[in-house]
Amino acid sequence: MHKLLQSINGPQDLKKLGVHELPNLAEEVRSYLMETVSKTGGHLASNLGCVELSIALHYCFNSPADKIIFDVGHQAYTHKILTGRRDTFPTQRRYRGISGFPKRSESEHDAFGAGHSSTSISAGLGMAVANGLNGDAHRVISVIGDGSLTGGMAFEALNQAGHLRKNLIVVLNDNEMSISRNVGALSSFISRKMTGGYYRSLKKEIEGLLTGIPAIGGNILHFAKKAENSLKGFLTPGTLFEALGFEYVGPINGHDLEAMVGILENVKQIEGPILVHVMTKKGKGYGPAEDMPDKFHGVSPFSLDGKPAPAPRAVAPSYTQVFGETMVKLAERDPKVVAITAAMPDGTGLTPFAKRYPERFFDVGIAEQHALTFAAGLATQGFAPVAAIYSTFAQRAYDQVFHDICLQKLPVVLCLDRGGLVGDDGPTHHGAFDLSYLRHLPELTVMAPKDENELQHMVYTAVGYGRPIALRYPRGAGFGVPMDREFKELPIGKGELLQDGTDLTLVAIGSTVHPALEAAALLKEQGISAAVVNARFVKPLDEELILSQAEKTGCIVTVEENALMGGFGSAVLELLADRGLSQVRVKRIGIPDRYIEQGSQAQLRADLGLDKEGIAATCAAFLKGRRADAPQLACVK
Amino acid sequence: MHKLLQSINGPQDLKKLGVHELPNLAEEVRSYLMETVSKTGGHLASNLGCVELSIALHYCFNSPADKIIFDVGHQAYTHKILTGRRDTFPTQRRYRGISGFPKRSESEHDAFGAGHSSTSISAGLGMAVANGLNGDAHRVISVIGDGSLTGGMAFEALNQAGHLRKNLIVVLNDNEMSISRNVGALSSFISRKMTGGYYRSLKKEIEGLLTGIPAIGGNILHFAKKAENSLKGFLTPGTLFEALGFEYVGPINGHDLEAMVGILENVKQIEGPILVHVMTKKGKGYGPAEDMPDKFHGVSPFSLDGKPAPAPRAVAPSYTQVFGETMVKLAERDPKVVAITAAMPDGTGLTPFAKRYPERFFDVGIAEQHALTFAAGLATQGFAPVAAIYSTFAQRAYDQVFHDICLQKLPVVLCLDRGGLVGDDGPTHHGAFDLSYLRHLPELTVMAPKDENELQHMVYTAVGYGRPIALRYPRGAGFGVPMDREFKELPIGKGELLQDGTDLTLVAIGSTVHPALEAAALLKEQGISAAVVNARFVKPLDEELILSQAEKTGCIVTVEENALMGGFGSAVLELLADRGLSQVRVKRIGIPDRYIEQGSQAQLRADLGLDKEGIAATCAAFLKGRRADAPQLACVK
Repeated sequence: MHKLLQSINGPQDLKKLGVHELPNLAEEVRSYLMETVSKTGGHLASNLGCVELSIALHYCFNSPADKIIFDVGHQAYTHKILTGRRDTFPTQRRYRGISGFPKRSESEHDAFGAGHSSTSISAGLGMAVANGLNGDAHRVISVIGDGSLTGGMAFEALNQAGHLRKNLIVVLNDNEMSISRNVGALSSFISRKMTGGYYRSLKKEIEGLLTGIPAIGGNILHFAKKAENSLKGFLTPGTLFEALGFEYVGPINGHDLEAMVGILENVKQIEGPILVHVMTKKGKGYGPAEDMPDKFHGVSPFSLDGKPAPAPRAVAPSYTQVFGETMVKLAERDPKVVAITAAMPDGTGLTPFAKRYPERFFDVGIAEQHALTFAAGLATQGFAPVAAIYSTFAQRAYDQVFHDICLQKLPVVLCLDRGGLVGDDGPTHHGAFDLSYLRHLPELTVMAPKDENELQHMVYTAVGYGRPIALRYPRGAGFGVPMDREFKELPIGKGELLQDGTDLTLVAIGSTVHPALEAAALLKEQGISAAVVNARFVKPLDEELILSQAEKTGCIVTVEENALMGGFGSAVLELLADRGLSQVRVKRIGIPDRYIEQGSQAQLRADLGLDKEGIAATCAAFLKGRRADAPQLACVK
Repeated sequence: MHKLLQSINGPQDLKKLGVHELPNLAEEVRSYLMETVSKTGGHLASNLGCVELSIALHYCFNSPADKIIFDVGHQAYTHKILTGRRDTFPTQRRYRGISGFPKRSESEHDAFGAGHSSTSISAGLGMAVANGLNGDAHRVISVIGDGSLTGGMAFEALNQAGHLRKNLIVVLNDNEMSISRNVGALSSFISRKMTGGYYRSLKKEIEGLLTGIPAIGGNILHFAKKAENSLKGFLTPGTLFEALGFEYVGPINGHDLEAMVGILENVKQIEGPILVHVMTKKGKGYGPAEDMPDKFHGVSPFSLDGKPAPAPRAVAPSYTQVFGETMVKLAERDPKVVAITAAMPDGTGLTPFAKRYPERFFDVGIAEQHALTFAAGLATQGFAPVAAIYSTFAQRAYDQVFHDICLQKLPVVLCLDRGGLVGDDGPTHHGAFDLSYLRHLPELTVMAPKDENELQHMVYTAVGYGRPIALRYPRGAGFGVPMDREFKELPIGKGELLQDGTDLTLVAIGSTVHPALEAAALLKEQGISAAVVNARFVKPLDEELILSQAEKTGCIVTVEENALMGGFGSAVLELLADRGLSQVRVKRIGIPDRYIEQGSQAQLRADLGLDKEGIAATCAAFLKGRRADAPQLACVK
């Protein structure tokens, strides 16, 4: 079983095989992928689609001397398996295992790390320029999906690459969808394939032109215009990339190894920027994934007979699901509510909204920058745009939040899903910074719900607020709290005292509120009386509540699933300093100043002391330290 | 004088004129522009280039019901003059005057604010979609320069616009340069004009094709391929935009009012997305600006005889200039030093570097995202890339700093010019947030020099550091301090105690260090002894120095020209809280939580208490407050 694959410990072993053996290897890789990912979960359909492409690339090029860069990394599994990570592959996406994405620190064959989209051409161009300056003839290959091409920075890079004319090979892995079916004019254009119809039509047009020949001697301008109009219909993907200065090769069947190897061998000889257009099928070789590639884009463990594994007994609806349902309800009530996603209709829970209100739903492609300025444009005309974006991807649109939304005080609602630790996707995907990068923008209100019930009220409040507002909520299931039937408007800038106490006040935000409550219960067992505040708002802070608790208990412990630097806890420090309450002692619990690796959310929270035990232990140690300190440090009561 | 213009108090007055009168109006506007901008300074060449275009747009469309959106805003002066701001125009860019950019709060005719590039199509598409949902037949017109098209989000917007097929008119104002001459494959492509040569060549190709006719009945594929290859050369800008789903109209002479009015009247009748390609000449009508459009892009007051006004007696070289000179010196010593700008070779001081080391200089277009990932790619190959970007524009690349540079620990040097208050350009351009948005990123070192001499040492230190590092420095002249002949390596994370004191410690960063020193002198006159620390590093902080001063003086006043929220002062608060030194009182001086309007840097600093008088007054009041406070608040000595 997997006989050929067992012999491949690095790309050099691959080259020992004959081209005729590669299809068998592909089958083995595919079977290994299925076997493994059905157990570990991960990005399945996209990886099944590029087994042959990855084999052909490593067969024809010499990594690591040649640099192969996989965009986003949803297509790098075969690459990992072929480059020395076959045996560790079952640990992928697991705690302390290998990453689900390309990662420089993991292998010299991972030329550039990824996780966010559309970076591969920029990075590849940097390497190609370096090769040029170094007089190094090795090749750089950026492998990018057609979905990632909708991201503007891919275009920025193509534009410069076509101009610089260095040796850069861009492989467009075209499966006509990224995560969901691609949107946008470019995708439809690229997908216009060379069909028989195309040639028939070309023949007809040329014949038509011939009738105009006598005019050549006459009104040449008229003739030329007519010719041009006739020819417009013949634009191919090639012409577009050629307009940008690339040599175009394709389209190639991305599952025909022999053809690909032949073409790539030729491509190696060509100088300058080249675009190789490869057609692949997402989910290739696994019927259910071919049929439902979006369902099999990112999967949890499943059974290989094609039936989805019985879903783990849902203890509570996910935040994503509650958000999606809330949006449908809000759209029912208010025709001005519109929803925007950047290629994540499923991931953000907006699919039910899209089905119900297709004309008020906008998937803009992998284009977070445009998403928010588009939302701002809608807001100028009296709409209530809600943009749902993963926290980490919204980093792409930081400037648009500043320049187009906040500065103009436009009522865009920014819903950041996957705020905090996301788990298996690891450091590129944790939403660790949103409270820090949003909090300092003037005019923006920033909040986080303590649970799924508060989430629905926050979305409702935000949509009615009429000013720039952002909320963030975590990945995964809520706490299973009862859901109110009616929406409640939350007063802006007001938190709630959930529990009184005398020794210290836990001031928690978002998903850490419930753990803080549980920590308070643990502390009680140790004879420590902890008050618990649900802050709700990072900005504006509930100054009155926090100050009164600070005076009352003299000690504040802030808790957030966000970077400690510049985050919620720092906002509390700023408040106390500004009010001259520097004698209040503050301990901040949150994400430390380093990148957090992958692992289950529970594991990571435990590691970082963000679970109830960790919070309780920190509080106890903090109080103990305080009591042991010199008397002049005593808190003012 | 300006007789026609005097009658124009809004777009409705414009419509009372006959088309034949418009050229005279254009001349009056142009003369008024020259007269005014030569006194106030501002963006001259780009505005001279689009006088006729702006007149034609307002003549044919009905603002504010029709929405005209000017990208970036370097081309909105005529628009402002025609829309009720003729008489206030001389106050543009001045303290409390009208803005040099479109601004929604200033006029209902400013449909969308700008200052940063490439947002107009996104915003316009949002409005066009809103019109569609509202059943409103009014038109939306996004006016964008060819330079702004190099920004990726413009492409993201075109891609969705071509797909949605709403009524959106994009006017491409093509002057073949944005601020500097445009770079990139797209620009060269767009500039490939319909010339006589084009038609001659087309004729020849068609004739060549005819010789293949007998083959039509035979190998049709072969013929078609040949035909396609022959036709590739005939791609026009039109074909590119048509590929993206736009109807293309043009190119049009953007100085021929009659032609433009005729075409725009037709365009109004067309449904769906339309791109109108208008050719203009930057600096049109003013010889010196036509000849040197980059020198006349943004101007200080000058004399209309074409001679640049005598430069104000330079008291000191600008930070930009020192940076540029330092880069040349570093490049001399180290062949691995490469420089990157996003369309700002002059603005960032890199022109001398570009002239001396053209092969190591990269202008990537208005593409900050790509700039930094491109830099990261270069860094993987052992180069020392230095990316010089204005602080406010670097906001566009926040995610790339995170995802491509810091997470991978790649040694990219990020030099943020225009950090802090920039003056006349106002709120879109102040670099008010960089310390806050960079500080929380793990692996990043963040620094700011106290003066131009320290700047050169910081750039030198950064280039040799080998890890991700950012520095920010202000717009304008340095302090005129002596410049060291030799570079010095600054120890990472070490500040310096510039002056000892006993009552409080001023901990200042960057451009506020010298004012803090002067403030200390003022305080001395009042009998207050203030120590002054030049922090140099926002991250890592010089913990030892700050903690020892905190213990020694018991009171810290932080000073920064950055947002108070999450900024340098917050870093100091975090440090003190983490070390349990909460009894130390801290006052933070910086930019408050609101957008700062335009005005001279000196004026704005005075308003915000960031000059020596302001700093001294805050310190004195803070100490007084402390002394008046209850005894339990006394600082620990």
